[in-house]
This record gives sequence, C-alpha cells and structure tokens, in this order.
Amino acid sequence: MSKMSQALTDCGALQIGDFTLASGAKSSYYIDIKKASTNPDVLRLIAQQMADNLRNSAIKVDRIAGVVLGSVPLAAALALETGIPYVMIRKEKKDHGTGKLIEGTLNIGDKVLVVEDVITSAGSSISAIETLRREGAVVENVFSVIDRESGGSENLKQIGVTLLPLVKASELF
Amino acid sequence: MSKMSQALTDCGALQIGDFTLASGAKSSYYIDIKKASTNPDVLRLIAQQMADNLRNSAIKVDRIAGVVLGSVPLAAALALETGIPYVMIRKEKKDHGTGKLIEGTLNIGDKVLVVEDVITSAGSSISAIETLRREGAVVENVFSVIDRESGGSENLKQIGVTLLPLVKASELF
Repeated sequence: MSKMSQALTDCGALQIGDFTLASGAKSSYYIDIKKASTNPDVLRLIAQQMADNLRNSAIKVDRIAGVVLGSVPLAAALALETGIPYVMIRKEKKDHGTGKLIEGTLNIGDKVLVVEDVITSAGSSISAIETLRREGAVVENVFSVIDRESGGSENLKQIGVTLLPLVKASELF
Repeated sequence: MSKMSQALTDCGALQIGDFTLASGAKSSYYIDIKKASTNPDVLRLIAQQMADNLRNSAIKVDRIAGVVLGSVPLAAALALETGIPYVMIRKEKKDHGTGKLIEGTLNIGDKVLVVEDVITSAGSSISAIETLRREGAVVENVFSVIDRESGGSENLKQIGVTLLPLVKASELF
C-alpha cells in the first residue's frame, strides 16, 4: 500500500469492505474524501505529492484551479506549496447561469492545472474545464487524489486533457 | 500602514478611493478579498498572522471552521499552519434545508474557531455559529482578515463571541 493509500486509510477517508453506493452499484471500497482534505497532515501530503508530480513533469502552469467545494482546499494547499496562484470554479447551475463562475484572477492564455479530489467519470472536471476554456484559459492537465478508474481518464482524453492521479483504485489494495 | 494592509493593497484586494457600494452607500475603500485569498503569498501571511494571534491568546481550539466559499481557503491555510483540523460550513438555504451543512469531522463539545474573510454586520458568521452550536460545538471566537467596523463585533458579542480581526477599517489609512 502506498504512503498516500495508507494516509487515506488512517484518516478514515478510505474504507475497504463491501459497500452499496447511492447509485445501487456494489463497491469494494468507500471514499469520504473530505475526511482527508480537512485533515491538515493529509492535506499537506496531498499538496506535496502533487507538487512533486508537477516538478517532475514538463507541465508549465500559470494557475491552479479547484472546483467548488471539495477541491478548493486542495487548490489552496497546492498554491501554498508551489507559490502558484489559484482560482475557484463554481459549478454551473441550470436554473440561473448569470453568477460569477470563476473566483480569483484568470488571464487569457493562462495555462491552468485543474486539481480534483475524486475522479469517477470526470463530469465535474469536464464542466470546469469548459468554463475555464470559455474564459480563454489553456487546460491540458488534471491532477486528482484518486482515480476510481471508471471512465474519467478516457473522457478527459477526448477533450485533450491528461489525468494524473496520486492513487488509482486498482492500487488501493 | 500595517504589513497586512500593505499586502492587501499590493495584491489588488484593497483599493482606496471613492466607491459606491451595491447598497448605494458611499465608501472610501473597496475590498475584493478573493484577490488576497487566491494569492499564495497573501494567503500564507493571513494564516501566519492568525496563527500568531491564536498562540498569543489563551484560546483553546479543537477545530477551525470556514464558511463557504470565501473562508474555506483561509480555514485550510490556518489548519496547515497550526496542525488543527477544520470543517467547512455551508450557508443554510431557505428553499431546501436537508443538505449537509458541515463538511469534515465535528465532535460534540469541540471548541471551534470560526475564520472569516470580511466582517460587516457578521450575519453569515452568526448563521454559521448557530449551525455549529446546533451540532454541539462551543464557539466563542471569530478571527477575520478585515473588520469593516459596521456592527459585526457588537452583533457577535450579543451571542457571546469575540471578534479578532487582522485589520480594522479605521486602520486601513
């Protein structure tokens, strides 16, 4: 088990067992990621590992982006770890689309790294990337804590985005 | 001008001049606090100064609380600075009151420090404190970045809570 998997287990964010998800599907694990992101030791470890991945890659980043609400603490922690400013992306609401969707400073042409807590089908990431691209940002990378390996990586690839998780579901055990 | 006032000015969060607020009232300054909280250098300074205030006080804290959305990065940064875990408090919605209002782990009897970006009348802080108290938390202190000195401190005092801002409006100039 990796250091991150161990930390997620120790803080109670990751539980191994037989679970029935809200969708009715069966799962051999359950993730309550906010138990990780609200724990300063685990939050720091997440930010450090993402910062390591960023340094070890050829990715150039002007801005980090965190999707409201779960990924905002991750974006703030990674910003503190790297010195790169971040923006917060609100989810689009069907009923009223006039609110400000991006909080923080974003410039046209900015290369933006999206951070996420848990990627399943990547629907909320794709929506956030569309919001960012409409504002002129360039988005080619998503860093997540966990990739549930449920189609998210493939769905992101279809819009030209590469997913790099800290932990894959298949590595949890 | 204090170090914090200078940092708020330099990052564009604080603008001095003649402004007409959304309410129609005139103001000699304008605050866009998210320009501060999304800037890692200013966010770190805020967290360090709040951590100093906490160490220099006799306040014992089990949990930090940040109100969604603006104060969540402050809560996360102060948690990283102090090692104290935090919770996120969602605003109560009139139309549907069934959602989860507190994200993160809160135990009955926990002493909670609420952090806020800007305090005006303290309405959103008071609502968050009521949410926390209903769950059995003990709340006696709010730390804010800015106190606009518009009744917030007095309103908090009426519910037994002391406000400690990093900057008061009267100190801005």
